[in-house]
Amino acid sequence: MSLTDSNAVDVARSASLASRQLATLSNEARNEALTLLHSALDKNRAIILAANKKDVELATQAAEDGTLNHSVLKRLDLSRPGKYDDMLEGILSVRDLEDPVGKITLRTLLDEGLTLERVSCPIGVLLIIFEARPEVIANIAALAIKSGNAAILKGGKESTGSFAAIANVVSDAIAGSQVPVSSIQLVKTRDAVSSLLAQDSFIDLVIPRGSNELVRHVKENTKIPVLGHADGLCSAYIHSDAKVQTAVKVIVDSKTDYPAACNALETLLVHESVLESILPEVASALLAKGVSLRCDQQSLEVLKKVVPADKASQISSATDTDYETEFLDLVLAIKTVSSAETAITHINTFHSGHTDIILTESSQEANRFMNGIDSAGVYWNASSRFADGMRYGFGTEVGISTNKIHSRGPVGLEGLTIYKYLIRGDGHVAADYHDGAGDGSTFTRSWNSKPSLT
Amino acid sequence: MSLTDSNAVDVARSASLASRQLATLSNEARNEALTLLHSALDKNRAIILAANKKDVELATQAAEDGTLNHSVLKRLDLSRPGKYDDMLEGILSVRDLEDPVGKITLRTLLDEGLTLERVSCPIGVLLIIFEARPEVIANIAALAIKSGNAAILKGGKESTGSFAAIANVVSDAIAGSQVPVSSIQLVKTRDAVSSLLAQDSFIDLVIPRGSNELVRHVKENTKIPVLGHADGLCSAYIHSDAKVQTAVKVIVDSKTDYPAACNALETLLVHESVLESILPEVASALLAKGVSLRCDQQSLEVLKKVVPADKASQISSATDTDYETEFLDLVLAIKTVSSAETAITHINTFHSGHTDIILTESSQEANRFMNGIDSAGVYWNASSRFADGMRYGFGTEVGISTNKIHSRGPVGLEGLTIYKYLIRGDGHVAADYHDGAGDGSTFTRSWNSKPSLT
Repeated sequence: MSLTDSNAVDVARSASLASRQLATLSNEARNEALTLLHSALDKNRAIILAANKKDVELATQAAEDGTLNHSVLKRLDLSRPGKYDDMLEGILSVRDLEDPVGKITLRTLLDEGLTLERVSCPIGVLLIIFEARPEVIANIAALAIKSGNAAILKGGKESTGSFAAIANVVSDAIAGSQVPVSSIQLVKTRDAVSSLLAQDSFIDLVIPRGSNELVRHVKENTKIPVLGHADGLCSAYIHSDAKVQTAVKVIVDSKTDYPAACNALETLLVHESVLESILPEVASALLAKGVSLRCDQQSLEVLKKVVPADKASQISSATDTDYETEFLDLVLAIKTVSSAETAITHINTFHSGHTDIILTESSQEANRFMNGIDSAGVYWNASSRFADGMRYGFGTEVGISTNKIHSRGPVGLEGLTIYKYLIRGDGHVAADYHDGAGDGSTFTRSWNSKPSLT
Repeated sequence: MSLTDSNAVDVARSASLASRQLATLSNEARNEALTLLHSALDKNRAIILAANKKDVELATQAAEDGTLNHSVLKRLDLSRPGKYDDMLEGILSVRDLEDPVGKITLRTLLDEGLTLERVSCPIGVLLIIFEARPEVIANIAALAIKSGNAAILKGGKESTGSFAAIANVVSDAIAGSQVPVSSIQLVKTRDAVSSLLAQDSFIDLVIPRGSNELVRHVKENTKIPVLGHADGLCSAYIHSDAKVQTAVKVIVDSKTDYPAACNALETLLVHESVLESILPEVASALLAKGVSLRCDQQSLEVLKKVVPADKASQISSATDTDYETEFLDLVLAIKTVSSAETAITHINTFHSGHTDIILTESSQEANRFMNGIDSAGVYWNASSRFADGMRYGFGTEVGISTNKIHSRGPVGLEGLTIYKYLIRGDGHVAADYHDGAGDGSTFTRSWNSKPSLT
């Protein structure tokens, strides 16, 4: 299913219609489509890998010419050991998760014979915009079908061949199931993004999967709600009573376990009273791991005294922008603060609302910090690297959201659902319950609403 | 606190800072502020009513000159019997609701000594834009404080005097509590709306309270998420096996109980097999209540035969736009459909996602309809007029949302909260749980995540 720029409306409208049919399918019917998808991708492995090989060859050439980043190459290559099998396995894992649709989260007996239920249901139509990784197609198709949502997928230009090959297999596989074919549409045309982002009457949620620049571009160019995060500027605060060994372990892991991840540490705040006791230990462990430290004046003076000459080049003065920078590299900004209060204010001002850490032995200080920090994740004596849907036990991850509404933090299948209210009555009418003033604000007949499930 | 257009940034920034402090207050501290607010508004009744009287006088003049709608007058007048007391009572009702903040909705033991909690918390900063009703100020201030959110309020020009008087009382009352004064800011400048709508880095949610035009204007002019509904185009479908008396009762109530409400019925779909049995009974009851019926050809032909001459003028041919119109008046569009399927497709195409009804004696048909309709509320044999936060048992109503994410349908205090994930550990690091491949997707150490609460 390719499209020209002008028929984004048709794609979005047909996805919207398909979504209504998809929403009525049973979990079994949705699971069956995933089983078919899995076997089709397994059977067509050779064709897909051949198409992917061509993409990789073109991209290798572009990387050699300097027109493409080398990291894209790695993400593009489906033939790396285990990658294709992981993709296949992922479809079955999603299939075997609990059905996120049809969960009753509130049931109230409003009156005799009149019941209110709040039931989880699919959101409708998702638009997923991603960059190089071709396995995202299988992953997103699985998540969408499992959660009863239609999905429009738009990939990056480097994966055009892989994308087309996978698209054909996905369409054929779904055609054999009860899931409407238009439920998963793969958009190949390059310029379609802006047209699709304009379809806010048909598309309910956009999920960009890729660089910060992609996420920012999407957020700035659509009225459709966007699920995701542009930045992951995680901070840690070492309180005056922190344990040295806990601080060292947690900060080294947060910074160095996977520096390019959104949940890696970028800013370290240190209480002034532990500048000479805890900071040198933490710094020494970080320097040993190759981390460069950008320090404010106070911390710089302390570290200059204790850091050995062969590591001195890894220490420098911080600029203001360092505290607003997601380095995604072995670099850490360090700042001295005079109180937990100052740390909280600094973090709430400069952070991205992703994940922040306090290191302290006091549960009172920890709770104050956890209440005061406005982030999706606030951790006490634990690494920021735990901010991950799999680690949270969600079974899958749609992405990590720094939004303040709907879903926040690692998002599982639940984030792809909303709810509807169902009322079942026997000819019940509102006129029986109010005084006739017309605004419905008062009830004359007794009203027994009793929430029973939440 | 007035502002010029240029310092919307200051208002929004100070609200954002205040919101962080407000988020850390206990339920008792927030409740105390509501008690103070209640008594201050009670004590200053005479001053506020005097200011309101002047607004009403100016508005009366404008209404006589034809520059203001008469309905605005009624909404503006705080001296109508019971109105001021209802406003005061509303503050105490909100105060006495269950605390929506700090609810633990998920708790997982990730590993020994490592716990994950999902805890409800305030969203942050709300921007409320409303039209004439001055009592909205007290209502919104109460909802915001109770839910721990800062609120910026912008009222309509007709209520300028009342607004200023109430604003002073609110500020003074809050100053005596632990709630930061900048938590509730009342913006008087007329042209501030567009500047405020641009503060998406500080404001987290906009709630427009007023006409459809206001809601549409807000939605089209901001990148901040908007909670609300522009239209309430509710539909009912009479299936072939519906009970006549149930259909008559539910449809008459849905249409006539309060025609100007967003949950009033606007479109009636009738299965062709009951055009001559059920429709005439329903039509006769509606006509007796003064409702005009705009009918498609099939239903018009049937009704022409049975409707008495003195009611003939209430029946006319429908145009296509009648099925997309929220009449908010004693007018109903009627259309014949050949199946439940057609009814579902019609509703999903033309409705606003507010509340829709099926009349049937078959639970199978009802369930199919309830699954297939993409609306905030889907009712079986019950009036659409039940779509209301008080009737749902929420104790209060922030508004009714037709959004597909975050909150849908009548929104209570819960809709003004989001959640954060808290992890408490003892120096736990991610490196202990994966194979070092760097992407964190696999774990070598056993991972005991067990969701225990949801």
